[in-house]
Amino acid sequence: MSNKNPIGVFDSGLGGLTVVKALRNVLPNEKIIYFGDTARVPYGNKSPELIKEYSLQITDFLLERETKIIVVACNTATALALSTLQEKLNIPIVGVIKPGVNSALTLTQNNRIGVIGTISTISSGVYEKELKIGNNSIEVTSNACPLFVPLAEEGWLNNPATKLIAEKYLEPINKKNIDTLILGCTHYPLLKKVIQETVSTEIQLVDSAQAMAFETKTLLSNGGLINDQNTEGELKLFVSDLPARFETVASRFLGEKISNVEKIQLD
Amino acid sequence: MSNKNPIGVFDSGLGGLTVVKALRNVLPNEKIIYFGDTARVPYGNKSPELIKEYSLQITDFLLERETKIIVVACNTATALALSTLQEKLNIPIVGVIKPGVNSALTLTQNNRIGVIGTISTISSGVYEKELKIGNNSIEVTSNACPLFVPLAEEGWLNNPATKLIAEKYLEPINKKNIDTLILGCTHYPLLKKVIQETVSTEIQLVDSAQAMAFETKTLLSNGGLINDQNTEGELKLFVSDLPARFETVASRFLGEKISNVEKIQLD
Repeated sequence: MSNKNPIGVFDSGLGGLTVVKALRNVLPNEKIIYFGDTARVPYGNKSPELIKEYSLQITDFLLERETKIIVVACNTATALALSTLQEKLNIPIVGVIKPGVNSALTLTQNNRIGVIGTISTISSGVYEKELKIGNNSIEVTSNACPLFVPLAEEGWLNNPATKLIAEKYLEPINKKNIDTLILGCTHYPLLKKVIQETVSTEIQLVDSAQAMAFETKTLLSNGGLINDQNTEGELKLFVSDLPARFETVASRFLGEKISNVEKIQLD
Repeated sequence: MSNKNPIGVFDSGLGGLTVVKALRNVLPNEKIIYFGDTARVPYGNKSPELIKEYSLQITDFLLERETKIIVVACNTATALALSTLQEKLNIPIVGVIKPGVNSALTLTQNNRIGVIGTISTISSGVYEKELKIGNNSIEVTSNACPLFVPLAEEGWLNNPATKLIAEKYLEPINKKNIDTLILGCTHYPLLKKVIQETVSTEIQLVDSAQAMAFETKTLLSNGGLINDQNTEGELKLFVSDLPARFETVASRFLGEKISNVEKIQLD
């Protein structure tokens, strides 16, 4: 495998583009292929079997394009399909949850960590479980923030309503004397500013997208897979559907204008 | 067919429970069977063929329970599958769109009508098309309000953030001198109060859920199908998945405590 081969990233929708943005910052020379399963989003309420099947379909598609590493930028796919992918594929795989968990475990001084995410992520308890595996004395406070995803998609990042909503969601977190807060959803990096303004200034935010980008760099480095050519990075986007407002929302997440998008059907 | 047979209602999720609530007010003696396709929600970004297939699966299920009329409480299924259902089934079918359109056409004095709904409903232009079929001189102003669905599901009906969001979404509507506003999404009746407070007091709101309940009553009446026994109404709920917070959200939409829910798999 050549170190010029692309990085493959997938998500059920567009949230994973914040991970692509972080990857493009951290690894500017790399080619990236993104697959957003916009026709079958959301994954959160589908059966584990189906999520495994979808994840394997997508990774087959990425492997045909000779990806050297796969980044699973979807909480549900990470929770339900990561171990299957790790068993079946012969390349490194990065999930959403562990990089953020490891960052938080490194950062915390008082062993009190907060987690925010979607209803399905928070109900699953996956972050709490992983944090406690890392350090059994960690106290975890979590809260679902279901309005943060549509607020990010609307691009209402500095809106007074967003501030009021953030205050309401983060109030229970603010009360628990945490020193580290995991943004456990790939949409939330867009709201980092308002979240930081709403919580105590002493609380450090863990941006899962950034943590995943650093983890990807480490794995590529360890495997001798970094593209050390002085080439400009490339990005190619594939989606299974092009819903209304796709370009606007996708550009907002990616932090640059979208081009090079192709709609394809996998099944 | 006995007039004691049930009314069948279906939706891709739980929004259609506002229609059930309206039906229980307007037709208090009737038995109602509701099917919410919570495992496959949302329908908005799926292909027309798939939506037809799902709708036929669900109506088969409802017909096995001898429903005398079917209420399609889902915008996407109405837009894509209503004519197929009307061709294939021998009982009356009520969709989401026409009852609201007809109410609005009756109410408007100045022929300026507003429509609010989800991104997929507003992008489809279906309300505008149906309003113009009814009266070609109607001027339509529409706006997508994507945050209204999660706000309704959160139950933040009197929250200051909700008021700010309503002001932002309804500003373009308020400018257009409309006298009638269609709430073109089954979630929106929950936000009727804040919407009415935000638009001019002269604007009349058309609650699609209520319009559908009246249309159902008319069709049952015309067909001699009203249950004229002095029996208490019954409600049985079926869903294809029971996601987190199901009972809380469902009770909010239905306006009463949820009981009698059964999870079943159709495919």
